[in-house]
Amino acid sequence: MYKTTLVIHGGAGTLIKSEMSAEKEVAYLAALKVALEEGNMILSNGGTALDAVEMAVKSMEDSPLFNAGKGSVFTANGTHEMDASIMSGKDRMAGAVCGITGVKNPVSLSRLVMEKSEHVLLAGVGAEEFGKEMNVDFEPASYFDEEWRRKQWLSVRGTDQVALDHNLNPDRKFGTVGAVALDKDGNLAAATSTGGMTNKKYGRVGDSPIIGAGTYANNSTCAVSCTGSGEFFLRGVVAYEVSALMEFKGLSLAEACSEVIQKRILEIGGDGGLIAVDQKGNLSMEFNTAGMYRGFVKEGEEINLAIYK
Amino acid sequence: MYKTTLVIHGGAGTLIKSEMSAEKEVAYLAALKVALEEGNMILSNGGTALDAVEMAVKSMEDSPLFNAGKGSVFTANGTHEMDASIMSGKDRMAGAVCGITGVKNPVSLSRLVMEKSEHVLLAGVGAEEFGKEMNVDFEPASYFDEEWRRKQWLSVRGTDQVALDHNLNPDRKFGTVGAVALDKDGNLAAATSTGGMTNKKYGRVGDSPIIGAGTYANNSTCAVSCTGSGEFFLRGVVAYEVSALMEFKGLSLAEACSEVIQKRILEIGGDGGLIAVDQKGNLSMEFNTAGMYRGFVKEGEEINLAIYK
Repeated sequence: MYKTTLVIHGGAGTLIKSEMSAEKEVAYLAALKVALEEGNMILSNGGTALDAVEMAVKSMEDSPLFNAGKGSVFTANGTHEMDASIMSGKDRMAGAVCGITGVKNPVSLSRLVMEKSEHVLLAGVGAEEFGKEMNVDFEPASYFDEEWRRKQWLSVRGTDQVALDHNLNPDRKFGTVGAVALDKDGNLAAATSTGGMTNKKYGRVGDSPIIGAGTYANNSTCAVSCTGSGEFFLRGVVAYEVSALMEFKGLSLAEACSEVIQKRILEIGGDGGLIAVDQKGNLSMEFNTAGMYRGFVKEGEEINLAIYK
Repeated sequence: MYKTTLVIHGGAGTLIKSEMSAEKEVAYLAALKVALEEGNMILSNGGTALDAVEMAVKSMEDSPLFNAGKGSVFTANGTHEMDASIMSGKDRMAGAVCGITGVKNPVSLSRLVMEKSEHVLLAGVGAEEFGKEMNVDFEPASYFDEEWRRKQWLSVRGTDQVALDHNLNPDRKFGTVGAVALDKDGNLAAATSTGGMTNKKYGRVGDSPIIGAGTYANNSTCAVSCTGSGEFFLRGVVAYEVSALMEFKGLSLAEACSEVIQKRILEIGGDGGLIAVDQKGNLSMEFNTAGMYRGFVKEGEEINLAIYK
C-alpha cells in the first residue's frame, strides 16, 4: 500500500502579495482547498489517481477564478477555446482535446478520448462531436462569460496583443490548472486544463493538451502537470523532460524538476512552473515566477496551500 | 565546415517486395530521388538545413504518391485534413499546424508559424486564416482528390473503421513524409507532414504536428522525423526520447534510435520508424515494420534509396 498524495496548481505568474487583495487571496485559497478535498476524498476511499486528478481539475474548471472551464479567457473572436489532457502512469494511456468550445469539463472529455476512442488527441469541432456522442455536459456561452474576463479581453481587443494571462493586470499569471496524484495501488496520473490566452487568434494551441509538454505520467518515473509560457514548454518538451532526467540520468524528482524549471526552460526564455509526484510520494511544486497557486495533501495529513514564493 | 547530410522518409509499414509492382516501386523511388535532389541542391549551395528539409518535404507533399499535401487521404467527411511541423536545431524554434484544409504545402505554413508568429502550434481554421494572411498557396479540393485515395476511403466509408494507411491494401503503410538535415554550418533541422488517417473522424491529430513526438531538432543531440502509429508515438514522446537518450544517457545516435524503435515503442504496442541525423553526420533510418520509403545523400556522394528491410 502506498501513501496517497495529491498535488494541484491553479497557474503560475507574477503573483505578488502586495498586489493581491486579502479578499482575492482568501477566494483562491478556498477554491484550491475545495479542489484538494474533492480529489483527496477519492484517494482516501481507495479510488484511483486518475479519478482523483480528474476530480481536482474538474473542481477548478467549475470555479470562475481559474482560466479553465467556467473561468476561461476570451479569444479574439469573443469566444472561449479550451484545451485539456490526462495521462495514466500505469499503462501510459493518454487523452487530450484542443480548441474546444462549450464543453463544461474539458478534462473529462480528454479522459473519454483516452478510454473510449482509439485516439490520443482530438481537435476543435471534431472533438466536440465526439463529446456529444459521449453525452458530456455542454454549456451555453453565457456560462463561460465571466465579466472580469471580458474586461481583460476588452483591454486588448482589436490590437495584435495576444496576452498570456500574466500580462494582464490585475491578474498576471499563466492561466492553467493541473493535478498529479499517487494512489494506494502505486499508480500515478496527471491532468491539465486551460482556457488559453486572452485575445488569442489563429487557433493557437499551447502545451496544456500536449502529452510530453504540458502533461506526462509514467509509474516508473513521475506524473507532471505544467503551467507557463506554452510555446516554450512545447519546445522544451517539459513534462517528459522531467521523466527523462529521472529515467536516463538518475536524478531524483526534486533534482529533475529543479533542473528543468530553474535552468533548462530559462535557457530558452520560458517561465512558469510545474507540479510533480513520484511513486515514493515525493512531490515537487517548482516555479521560476513570483508565485504559483498550489497545494497538496498526503494521506492522513493536513492540506497545504500556498501562492507566493 | 560540416559535411552536409539529408535524410528523408515517405512513410513506413507493410511494404513487401513481393506485393509491390515494379511500376509502383519505380515511381516511389523516383519521387524520393527528386525530393533528395531538390533538398540537397540547397545544401550543396551552402543553404540551411531548415531550407533543405522544407524543400524535401514540399517535394513529397507535391507528389500524389505520398500521404501528405496533394496525395492526402480522405477523412470520414470526404475532406482532407493535414498536419505538419518543423523545428530548427540551432535555436530550438519550432512551428506546426494541425487539421488544416486546402493549404498546398502544410510544411511551409508550419515554417511561417515558427518565423512569423509568436506561436508554435496553430489548429484548424485559425491556422488557415494565418496562412491567408501570410499569402500561402491554397488549392481547391479537386487538387487533393486523388482517385486511388478516394477508393481507399470508399472501401471503409460509413464504417467505424479508421484506417492508418497501412491497413488498406494495396498500400498498407503509415502515410507520413519527413526530412532531417545537417548543413555546412553544423545546424540541424527536422520536418514532418501528413494527411492523417483514411476515414478519420473527430478531428483526430497524430504525432506529426507535435514537437517532441513526430518532430524534434537540437544541434547538441539530433534532428528526428517519425512515421508510425501516431497515438503510440504521442504517448512515447518518441522524437524527443531519441534526443534525451543521447543527452542524458550518452547513447550514440544509432543506439538511441534502435532503443526507441526496436524496444521502447514496441513495449507500448507501437510500430513505425524514424529518420535521424546528428552534427557529426551520423544518420539513422530505423523501423520495426517490413519497410519504410527512405533515402539519404551526403555531400559529394551518391543518392541512396531503399524501401524494404
